[in-house]
Amino acid sequence: MSSGIVEQKNRLDAGAELHNFARSLFPICRSITGDGIRETLRLIGERISLKLFDVPTGTQVFDWTVPKEWNIRDAYIKDSSGKRLVEFQQSNLHVLNYSTPIHTTMRLTELKSHLFTIPEHPDWIPYKTSYYKENWGFCLTHNQLLNLKEGEYEVCIDSTLENGYLTYGECFIPGKTADEILISCHTCHPSLANDNLSGLAVATFLAERLLSRNLRYSYRFLFAPGTIGAITWLAQNNETTKRIRHGLVLTCIGDRNSFHYKKSRQDNAEIDRSVAHILKHSDPSAKILPFSPYGYDERQYCSPGFNLAVGCLMRSVWGTFPEYHTSADNLDFLSPDSLAGSLSICVSVVNLLENNLRYKNLAPFCEPQLGRRGLYHSTGGNTPDLEINARLWVLNLSDGKHSLLDIAEQSGIAFSLISDAADLLKKNGLLEEVKPA
Amino acid sequence: MSSGIVEQKNRLDAGAELHNFARSLFPICRSITGDGIRETLRLIGERISLKLFDVPTGTQVFDWTVPKEWNIRDAYIKDSSGKRLVEFQQSNLHVLNYSTPIHTTMRLTELKSHLFTIPEHPDWIPYKTSYYKENWGFCLTHNQLLNLKEGEYEVCIDSTLENGYLTYGECFIPGKTADEILISCHTCHPSLANDNLSGLAVATFLAERLLSRNLRYSYRFLFAPGTIGAITWLAQNNETTKRIRHGLVLTCIGDRNSFHYKKSRQDNAEIDRSVAHILKHSDPSAKILPFSPYGYDERQYCSPGFNLAVGCLMRSVWGTFPEYHTSADNLDFLSPDSLAGSLSICVSVVNLLENNLRYKNLAPFCEPQLGRRGLYHSTGGNTPDLEINARLWVLNLSDGKHSLLDIAEQSGIAFSLISDAADLLKKNGLLEEVKPA
Amino acid sequence: MSSGIVEQKNRLDAGAELHNFARSLFPICRSITGDGIRETLRLIGERISLKLFDVPTGTQVFDWTVPKEWNIRDAYIKDSSGKRLVEFQQSNLHVLNYSTPIHTTMRLTELKSHLFTIPEHPDWIPYKTSYYKENWGFCLTHNQLLNLKEGEYEVCIDSTLENGYLTYGECFIPGKTADEILISCHTCHPSLANDNLSGLAVATFLAERLLSRNLRYSYRFLFAPGTIGAITWLAQNNETTKRIRHGLVLTCIGDRNSFHYKKSRQDNAEIDRSVAHILKHSDPSAKILPFSPYGYDERQYCSPGFNLAVGCLMRSVWGTFPEYHTSADNLDFLSPDSLAGSLSICVSVVNLLENNLRYKNLAPFCEPQLGRRGLYHSTGGNTPDLEINARLWVLNLSDGKHSLLDIAEQSGIAFSLISDAADLLKKNGLLEEVKPA
Repeated sequence: MSSGIVEQKNRLDAGAELHNFARSLFPICRSITGDGIRETLRLIGERISLKLFDVPTGTQVFDWTVPKEWNIRDAYIKDSSGKRLVEFQQSNLHVLNYSTPIHTTMRLTELKSHLFTIPEHPDWIPYKTSYYKENWGFCLTHNQLLNLKEGEYEVCIDSTLENGYLTYGECFIPGKTADEILISCHTCHPSLANDNLSGLAVATFLAERLLSRNLRYSYRFLFAPGTIGAITWLAQNNETTKRIRHGLVLTCIGDRNSFHYKKSRQDNAEIDRSVAHILKHSDPSAKILPFSPYGYDERQYCSPGFNLAVGCLMRSVWGTFPEYHTSADNLDFLSPDSLAGSLSICVSVVNLLENNLRYKNLAPFCEPQLGRRGLYHSTGGNTPDLEINARLWVLNLSDGKHSLLDIAEQSGIAFSLISDAADLLKKNGLLEEVKPA
Repeated sequence: MSSGIVEQKNRLDAGAELHNFARSLFPICRSITGDGIRETLRLIGERISLKLFDVPTGTQVFDWTVPKEWNIRDAYIKDSSGKRLVEFQQSNLHVLNYSTPIHTTMRLTELKSHLFTIPEHPDWIPYKTSYYKENWGFCLTHNQLLNLKEGEYEVCIDSTLENGYLTYGECFIPGKTADEILISCHTCHPSLANDNLSGLAVATFLAERLLSRNLRYSYRFLFAPGTIGAITWLAQNNETTKRIRHGLVLTCIGDRNSFHYKKSRQDNAEIDRSVAHILKHSDPSAKILPFSPYGYDERQYCSPGFNLAVGCLMRSVWGTFPEYHTSADNLDFLSPDSLAGSLSICVSVVNLLENNLRYKNLAPFCEPQLGRRGLYHSTGGNTPDLEINARLWVLNLSDGKHSLLDIAEQSGIAFSLISDAADLLKKNGLLEEVKPA
Repeated sequence: MSSGIVEQKNRLDAGAELHNFARSLFPICRSITGDGIRETLRLIGERISLKLFDVPTGTQVFDWTVPKEWNIRDAYIKDSSGKRLVEFQQSNLHVLNYSTPIHTTMRLTELKSHLFTIPEHPDWIPYKTSYYKENWGFCLTHNQLLNLKEGEYEVCIDSTLENGYLTYGECFIPGKTADEILISCHTCHPSLANDNLSGLAVATFLAERLLSRNLRYSYRFLFAPGTIGAITWLAQNNETTKRIRHGLVLTCIGDRNSFHYKKSRQDNAEIDRSVAHILKHSDPSAKILPFSPYGYDERQYCSPGFNLAVGCLMRSVWGTFPEYHTSADNLDFLSPDSLAGSLSICVSVVNLLENNLRYKNLAPFCEPQLGRRGLYHSTGGNTPDLEINARLWVLNLSDGKHSLLDIAEQSGIAFSLISDAADLLKKNGLLEEVKPA
């Protein structure tokens, strides 16, 4: 098999494996606390070594308090004939997430204020939550709602909201240095695929690949509920946050759209430039978005007290696609090839960060004679190819001030070629690494 | 009445009042000195408290000297039958402004070198001046010129050019701080409406509105003849110039064109950014122009010895519209609605400058829990509206370094919404003002 | 004759003279060493005083070694009937430049690996070199190659490759200061006209014009073989390089294309801004190119150890036009008018650099009264013309920080007008030169 075919096969295999993993997580009823999240972490932990942390209800985390733990066994709406019309067992989206328990009968008019639908998509169930205001409710398709006749209904939500724990998981991969790269994804959404089984799957597989590598940076993968999970983690890991050099929030990266990268609050951090560079050379329709304080957990990492260099990698952007936060964000909405492509982008970003060093040209006066080292074409009069050009760029800009990413950006040549050129020149004694001051 | 209708009625009223005020000033024969300017200041002084300053002829003001005072009673050209062909009483533009007195007869050929017309607009009278080279002349329509037959004419300019005073007026409105905002407009043009009764009217009404307010900045409104007036004021108010933080020259702001703002020499001063922001959010076709050393009195304020942050707000730009410096720049050329709109922009700019503070987020680690303070929507899963977004932006960027204008610019949200959000967050104990070092 | 016609005639004369000079250099077989280069320098030395430097074979110059000297008397391919099919005497491009001597017979199949053609341009001879890998070969038209029948051929290259010298020439024109401007062009290409007889001719004529002038800067014209010549010069003139403030490599400036200027590695050096300004005001289709480490001898001057402010002025860019490095780059490819235009641009750039001073406005508070100095129009109400505008710009920005080029760039007015305005204002006592700290 040619190397292109091997690569294509690897990508097919990776895509299928990622999609299968997402499929295994899909049915679990997750929320910001509860057994669903622990079951999810258990399945992730079957692939990568995961350390779990349980933070008790009531723990103060900055301006917030860890809420009660929510668990649910069943929920339904029955009509007067006893027929189940809306059933948790069919889709965990049917229940307003964090609903308080209830078991009663009521008339449709009264019930209606607890029902949520999407009139524009009458066959889709919306995803709704009420974490911080005690409430109960059902989410159903608009067609289901239209079919409800006046009369009495039995409503049952067999849930508990009690003191317990908020649970998150960490996979830590030590590197040569204590400087850390944070990969963070939210674990709280129930049966929604792109948001965020895609993020969980890609993060898990990325960790798996890094575990076998010899790394410069240490890597911390965080699997935690959105908002309160990231806040809890930040509140309990003050020392760790100081070691974070770069970070990515992974979410909505399994659909068929091209990439969107939302920059960190720092706007031009190395992670921002790295992701932009990789995307520019691999997805011409990728878009780089400015930072904004709404979104996923980059909100917390980029709050002014932390101001970490953490961006958010997405394909479709939350809130902009109709399937967002509905039952239509299902396993079919995920493309195996997209999942594999997202993993590949993450690997490329890691490779860039790992190799983004600064060098000093040891023969900085005029060009060194590449020809006698076999690093140049021997018959004059031709224009140089990309490989030779990469060598000339690295030599010209390796003054100890330009990083390889600087050189890649300025030359317009892909980082991988620039990095290869630097390796070759270093082997030939023409470059020396410059350690940061 | 709905608030929209109230606003519309207010604007209609303001427009009519502004136009009426311009109408009352229109007939007066103004120049850089003389009774016309004093009569103009008297009428302005009927609306706002104005302090008048008389600077004697011969006073040295930097590189210039206050010129003799010019006054005029009458002027005409009579043909040999005694018929008045060109009459000052019909339009004060008919006389070359600052003409020395003359009463004689001469042949048309000789007279012609003292006549000015606009061949391209044969029914318009041009506006011409000769302040610093003693001369006399008449401005007439080109059709009038074509009708002049060969022969003798009696020419009379009943003017005086004698030692006297250059007069300017100031309205000072003290605020909480000694820092000043300067609003400057030129009072020297005779019967020309857009240039600059529009500026005089809007400045007068703006002062009127500010007199009743509780202000952070002190405001100085300067009504002075162009060039020599601004130079005289700067020469005599050296200490005051050091307190000027921001300033605007108002001119040509009554016609029907969209806004043009010419930036100060500093190019990116707070006044430049403030006006640009307000215009961006209220007049999509507004244009921001770079500084140039020709124009109105911003030339003097932005001379390198002062380099004050003073820009120039216009609708049509001087010299670019055919009516400029002709009798066609009359009261019909002014639109009441444009005058009201210009006043409204000025008020918005003042509001921005008054409220452009810096805050420190008092809960800077992660987002504060807005929900429990009633500052967030309670059902999760929705994208936030503009008001909530404004709160998130203010919290995220309030690190003591970003002003509210910085935040408005970066977020793309109108300053008024950003400022409202800051007020609300401050009331909720989440923000604290940061005083400049 | 009007001044326009005089100018046009001067340009016609200059163009014809430049083209004649190029014609006189065309037949010489140049290489990076050898008699051809010395004969070329002799002809240049007939016009300007040139100092020659001979650097012996084997001299170490940074990472390189001065190669053996190559000379050639004759070369040909004869068929078995003794007919000369490829002849050095017809075009010196027929020999692979730096071919080692050979005289033998061989079959066509064997010979073919030593033959170079351009199939896409079957009537053109390519230009090829093999300086640093000993080899021999012939360059011929593709049609010649197609006509070669199977059989035995006599091949003869009557060349020598022996210890000798690398020769370069310098023309130094002292100015008031020791600060130098370097003009560099490569002398190594044989019968190729645009690349680089155009550069040699324009540099020679520019030096001729500067020799009669009173100059602020000292000028150094370097005529040296490409790459190894520039490297040799840099290696042997370390002290001189420290005095170089600005520099230009001149190449491919005789064809009919519009200008291309490749910026120095510093990207925004005074030479970069100067050339860009001059081109903007004289050739609307000129293009400014970013620095890149491939090209002509700016590669060496801009290597990180030197990082000199040296850009490269071209019309067509090397490698981008089909005639590049082929026999089609002949005297017809050169336009006399283009050569004259290139010379004129170089003179304008020199004029700019010579006059790019910083001034201080001696009347910086408000505008000085230009009118009483006869520097302003006397009848008010007109917009100022370009000359007056230039004066206002110079006064406004002459704060000791802005150079005249800064002022020309910011105002959009041509440097020559800005410089004239500064001279006039200085004569009127309004400006004073500010010496660099």
